[in-house]
Order: sequence, then C-alpha cells, then structure tokens
Amino acid sequence: MPRFRLDIEYDGGGYAGWQRQADNHSIQAAIEQAIFKFSGDAISLRGAGRTDAGVHATGQVAHIDLSRDWTDDKVRDAINAHLQMAGETVSILSARRVGDGFDARFSATGRHYLYRIQNRRAPAALEKGKVWWVPKRLDAEAMQAAAQLILGRHDFTTFRSTQCQANSPIRTLERLDVSRTGDMIEIRSSARSFLHNQVRSMVGSLKRVGEGGWEPADMRKALDARDRAACGQVAPPDGLFLTGVDYAAGAEMPSSD
Amino acid sequence: MPRFRLDIEYDGGGYAGWQRQADNHSIQAAIEQAIFKFSGDAISLRGAGRTDAGVHATGQVAHIDLSRDWTDDKVRDAINAHLQMAGETVSILSARRVGDGFDARFSATGRHYLYRIQNRRAPAALEKGKVWWVPKRLDAEAMQAAAQLILGRHDFTTFRSTQCQANSPIRTLERLDVSRTGDMIEIRSSARSFLHNQVRSMVGSLKRVGEGGWEPADMRKALDARDRAACGQVAPPDGLFLTGVDYAAGAEMPSSD
Repeated sequence: MPRFRLDIEYDGGGYAGWQRQADNHSIQAAIEQAIFKFSGDAISLRGAGRTDAGVHATGQVAHIDLSRDWTDDKVRDAINAHLQMAGETVSILSARRVGDGFDARFSATGRHYLYRIQNRRAPAALEKGKVWWVPKRLDAEAMQAAAQLILGRHDFTTFRSTQCQANSPIRTLERLDVSRTGDMIEIRSSARSFLHNQVRSMVGSLKRVGEGGWEPADMRKALDARDRAACGQVAPPDGLFLTGVDYAAGAEMPSSD
Repeated sequence: MPRFRLDIEYDGGGYAGWQRQADNHSIQAAIEQAIFKFSGDAISLRGAGRTDAGVHATGQVAHIDLSRDWTDDKVRDAINAHLQMAGETVSILSARRVGDGFDARFSATGRHYLYRIQNRRAPAALEKGKVWWVPKRLDAEAMQAAAQLILGRHDFTTFRSTQCQANSPIRTLERLDVSRTGDMIEIRSSARSFLHNQVRSMVGSLKRVGEGGWEPADMRKALDARDRAACGQVAPPDGLFLTGVDYAAGAEMPSSD
C-alpha cells in the first residue's frame, strides 16, 4: 500500500471542522470522498491538526495509503478535480510518496498557527470569515509583551477547552508573537503540539490585554492560576489558520526493515 | 442637504454589481437601503466606479446628500450597523462631510484597479472568488513587457466590451504593471477612467502572453487592430478589485458661491 503525504489548504467556513462526523460535513470527509471517487479506495485520512469548525488551513498535512502506485501529480490533480466538482473549498497543494513510517500526526514535531484580528471601526467585508473583527483599538505592543510572559513549558489548563481530551495539560509554547500591519494584527504561535482551543484561548486573553482590561502581567497570572475560569474570552474560529507542520529530517524516508 | 463622501469596501461575490437593478441585489441598493433605515432619507448613491457582478472593492468612493447634519462617525457606524444586520458583505470604511461641489464620479481624476491571478496547479480554496485560478505556469516578465507596449493615449476598442456606453474609445492608460510574488500574479492598472471591461480584457490578453500563445508584441498588435475580435479571453470578475479613486486637491472643499 503506497503511502502519500498530502499538503492541504482549506477555507473552513462551511465545515464542521477537520474531523469526520456522523451528521455534519467535515474537511476530512470531503477529501476521503474525493479519494474514493478517483481511486475506489475507502481510506481513512490522518491529519496533523484536528482543526475546529470555521478554522482554516494553508498548511495542513495528512497521509493516506492507496492501493495503487499512482504518480504524485496524478494523486494531487485527481483529488482536486473531485473536490472541485463537489464544490468544496479544499485544495490539495501537493501529494508526495513517502515511506510507511511517515505518520502525519505522530511524526509531527511542530505545528504553526496564525491568528488574524482586523482592528478597525469598519466591519470586515472582504475578509469576513477570515478575521476576528475588533472595532476597539488594541495595543499590539502590550499584547506582545504579555505573550512573551507565557512562553516555555507550563501547565496550560487555563487556556484549554474543558472538552480537551489530551492526557496532560503540560505543553511547551515555543512562539507567541503579536505584530500589527495597518489595521491587521497577526498573532503567530508555534509548539510541538497544542491543547484543544489553546491558541484561541490565548488570543482571547491577549485581546483583553490589548483593550487595556488586563496588564501584560495578568496574562502570566492567568496561566499560573491553572484554572479555566481565569481565561479571557475564547477568540472565534474565523481568524485562525493552521499554517504549517514540521517533521524531523528523514521522517518521509522508507523504513529500513 | 449636507453631502458626505463614503469610502467603501466590498466582497462583490454575491452581488449583481455596483449598480442598482430591478431584479437583482446590488452593492448600491444594499447601501441605499441601509441609509434609508438609519436616516429615513431615500437617497440615490453615486459611485466612482460601476463595478460588474463579482468584482470587489477596497477603495470604492461614493457620495450622498443627507437631510440632517450627522457627525461623520455616526454616518459610518449607522450605515455599517444596518449593512451588518442585513448580512451584506459591504463596509463603509469612512464617511466624511464634503462640499456640495464634490461628485464621487465626475470629480474623480484617477482610478486604480488590482487584478490577482493565482498561478499554481492546486485550485484556489482560501482565495476562491478573489482570484483567477490559472494552473498553467505564466511568464510574468513577458506579461510585464507586453503591458508596457499599450501604455498611453490610444483607441482601446479592442479591450472594450461591446456593451460599453462611453462616447469615445479613447483613453489614457497610465499604469499597467505585472508582478509575481510566489504563486500570486498581481496586475495593477491606473487611468483617469476605463472603458467597460477594459481591465479584464487587458488581463485576458496578458494571460495569453504569459502562456506563450502571444509574443509581447502581439499585445500592441491587438491594440492597434482596434477590433474587439482581436482581444484575448476576458478575465473573470473574481480577481478584480477597485482599490482607489483620486480627486484633485480641494475637490472636497465647500464651493465658494
């Protein structure tokens, strides 16, 4: 069974999220259906990040096992053709043959997210569904100062959904950077892995700092509370993008056995 | 009757174009309805550029006469509140009190458009409806060379819709620049005014150059033919954005009489 790595872009606006569900349309199901139509293979797609409803991706990664050894270009173009026909807002950026040891989820060593806040009086029109519209002026420098106070290895219970199924609330936050360009505030975050709703929870609390309701130091106090109730508003999914996944060098090579 | 200048952003995807129509929803009608709901004034909105169905704007300009002298911020926020309630993808970026002599359409001295081509094998997903997806690799440098050959004052009959109602096909093309960043090709065009479908017609012909079907010199030959049949494919509306309108210094001042 030849294994392929898929790099995937999607507008998550019309979907119940990445993961297949009984009653709602998901990104995973859209791609699985397209694969079945071109190959006849009823496969189960494994993705690196199980993004929530309304969350987007420019660099999701998944892997699949097909029954025939198609060329990389054929796999990409055939899946895309069926996604297009079905009217999905999902696109396979590339397909690449990899070794059996490559697992999009478990081989991942880093995940990167971007969160966008459109910070202006006028509501979002062109970027509607792709930003969090915040009309009140935010202090991006205070947000950046606050963000730096929670970097590193911590118990992130405060910034974790009560529905999170991870065994441990301990994560190592490698990057949380806030910058402004005109009326767009971009928040970039990286870690080996994130808890459920972690990025949106951190962004909601950073917004509170930006508004002046919290001092930057309050961000650290919220972390140290290890209490979900200490978290600010959870930011809406619209502004969140999974932008990339890292793998160790050699992760795609055929296994040696 | 106090006059206001409105600067407007919209996603034109769900509209029949800028101009009010009997049977289809337009940007103009959406804004007029929002103005009526907040002010009771049944006004007619005058826009600088009558964009076609599916064309977007980041910098459309219009003017309105209201019966009361509201503050600028009140006009902007009240129109936006009603646009939001109606679910429109239209946003008033700013409203500003101007003199009676200001006419968004007739005072305009320059118009600026951006056209975006997403040039990659994978179909557009996140940018769907906001780009022209062209899977075949285009030579942006050849397109830029071709574009420079039609700058200046010419008879643009070749690049004009057969439904264009302008009295003269003579226009002065001040800018037509093609550049590539990654898989995105941006074409920026400026003129005092454009003929109907002129930008999309020029872009369609430039794409033919980019594919290698035309030499750059063929762009000039097409112009010189002054024949609509010499035009390449007309580019779809999805990739087109009205990005700004110029006015002479003092155009917004109260008239002196």
